[in-house]
Amino acid sequence: MKRSYIREILESINEHTISFAGGLPNKNLFPLKQIRQVSLKVLEYPDALQYSQSQGLESLRKEISNIYTNKFNFKTNKDEILITTGSQQAFDIILKTFQTDKMIVQSPSYIGAIGAFRALKLKINSFESINYLKNTLKKSNILYLMSDFQNPNTKSYTKEERMEIEQVLKKQSSILIEDGAYSFLSFDGKISQAISSHYSNSFHLGTFSKIIAPGLRVGWIRAKKENIQKILFAKEALDLHTSTLNQMIIFEYLNTFNLEDHLKLIREDNYKRMIFLSKCFKKFLPYFDFELPKGGMFIYGKFKDIDTMNLAKQIQKLNIAFVPASVFYHDDRVSYEARFNFTNLSYKQMLKGIKKIANFIDKHKYISS
Amino acid sequence: MKRSYIREILESINEHTISFAGGLPNKNLFPLKQIRQVSLKVLEYPDALQYSQSQGLESLRKEISNIYTNKFNFKTNKDEILITTGSQQAFDIILKTFQTDKMIVQSPSYIGAIGAFRALKLKINSFESINYLKNTLKKSNILYLMSDFQNPNTKSYTKEERMEIEQVLKKQSSILIEDGAYSFLSFDGKISQAISSHYSNSFHLGTFSKIIAPGLRVGWIRAKKENIQKILFAKEALDLHTSTLNQMIIFEYLNTFNLEDHLKLIREDNYKRMIFLSKCFKKFLPYFDFELPKGGMFIYGKFKDIDTMNLAKQIQKLNIAFVPASVFYHDDRVSYEARFNFTNLSYKQMLKGIKKIANFIDKHKYISS
Repeated sequence: MKRSYIREILESINEHTISFAGGLPNKNLFPLKQIRQVSLKVLEYPDALQYSQSQGLESLRKEISNIYTNKFNFKTNKDEILITTGSQQAFDIILKTFQTDKMIVQSPSYIGAIGAFRALKLKINSFESINYLKNTLKKSNILYLMSDFQNPNTKSYTKEERMEIEQVLKKQSSILIEDGAYSFLSFDGKISQAISSHYSNSFHLGTFSKIIAPGLRVGWIRAKKENIQKILFAKEALDLHTSTLNQMIIFEYLNTFNLEDHLKLIREDNYKRMIFLSKCFKKFLPYFDFELPKGGMFIYGKFKDIDTMNLAKQIQKLNIAFVPASVFYHDDRVSYEARFNFTNLSYKQMLKGIKKIANFIDKHKYISS
Repeated sequence: MKRSYIREILESINEHTISFAGGLPNKNLFPLKQIRQVSLKVLEYPDALQYSQSQGLESLRKEISNIYTNKFNFKTNKDEILITTGSQQAFDIILKTFQTDKMIVQSPSYIGAIGAFRALKLKINSFESINYLKNTLKKSNILYLMSDFQNPNTKSYTKEERMEIEQVLKKQSSILIEDGAYSFLSFDGKISQAISSHYSNSFHLGTFSKIIAPGLRVGWIRAKKENIQKILFAKEALDLHTSTLNQMIIFEYLNTFNLEDHLKLIREDNYKRMIFLSKCFKKFLPYFDFELPKGGMFIYGKFKDIDTMNLAKQIQKLNIAFVPASVFYHDDRVSYEARFNFTNLSYKQMLKGIKKIANFIDKHKYISS
């Protein structure tokens, strides 16, 4: 099996690399002091280091269900939550339990999801327009999508589009996996209504990776109780349960501090960084065409006539990395599109990186104007 | 899919249950203060909360490879280690990468392994004697076994048996998965030579769950570099990587304290508890037939004519739990055997529990003498 291009890039990165690849949050915004404080508290009791239940700690499941009910306007109780070892694990847990002849995914789509589907040897088909989805989705398929700030292309569905997708799903009774990895990360702080809140044969995925810290590997699946019960066996067979310590740390953090205050910091920082990177593009790479995102962690755009996989491989030698979009298409097509992360680099590095890419393109007389 | 009986028992346990089920280590022996101390140190740096590499932290992989080289007499380097989210995850990672038509397992066998193989929809065959294995194992099979203090029946292979198995493997070139979960837990502190150290097409599994703390969910796979590279894709597709924080905690713990001192404490405590429980059996349940184990966390034995699944269900109503052996046989046969854990209960509870079982058997006139 081929290892994913993104992880290869991530692992080739050293201290000198200017990396727009990956989806690393700004580590300077991690609530490090607060996590230290609650870790000390949690580690007063040996139960923090003991085995725990496969579904996850009841206290944390309650907190997450409150977030759904209060912030997502999506009524949820603790029995409708299963804690996962990062959101990534959700794919395996759901798809080992529910059989499908084909995954239907957005085009382009999150590379980690495509990787998980491939590891499970599932067939993949993709859709760009909802009209195409209408004619493609069958009862025997499982639909995977992001409604908010899609990775990679940063788009969100409008209210009308969500209703249309809901109708397609209801007609076919297919299973929906709705990935909410970026749902908290709108720049204006608003959270849109999940399609899952109107469609019960659904799994809504969430994660603390983008809003607290990815190194803890704590995510979750939200589904009706009956479906949570069905997937519990697969979770248990995979890793028994998610780290007790890390679940307790997150619970104590949510219980002690105001998540909304922390989200405000992240959103403001992300917005400033996005604006800065967009200005770098406009000044030095004006032929890179993109729309300003309204949330998330990426700028996604298109060169007129540059095969971005080729460009990525060339500039990797200069210690610069970004993600060429062909990896986001399950058919590995040639693409002129590219994804740039703006949450992980310093402003100085972002400027330097974009300038270097512009110089490289000039020097090698790529025609992209 | 049926949820495993052990997890069902574990999850039905409340503060009033006297549970000999599960494999929970004595939480009072967790190095809680030391873990607090190293957590504080680790949480001075935001990198402890950031994404990290799929194969695991290089520093921790080095420590584990040193353990192999120095304690297991099994030369190993950091490129031959992959960090897993608990040892349990290793099954999925290996078996998604290497195709097999059938798993060959010990009879009886670890229930978590059987569960993982079932979740992957693999066929299972089992062997009791090595002679039977000789005639059963084929090139296209994968062999799963524990060499040391097998869960559930606490047996270890002799040096001669290990050599015989090695010969069977070499003849067929089958893949070996050797589970070393209890390899550190001999009462006399000795570590036997792993079969994997003489057979290169092998995966040796290890875990910190039984020797530091299970709630951290940190285990590993030891294999030749070429095979580690092959399984990396499956690890990444599953959960990207194991918790950065927990890996750093374990590394700092190993780097700061003497693991051997801690192992000595665990071995001594385990031994005393085993002797106590064995005395309870001899006094109150003399018709429960068992051999004294030489390591591990269980006493495994046999009633003359009691279907232990039936007994387990009956005494669960009295808030007592143990594991009836039928769950350890992949064919779900009726069994008179049972597994009792001695590491998790207080001495008082062990005594009370065995007395209650004896009373129950007397009262209901089970004939087992």
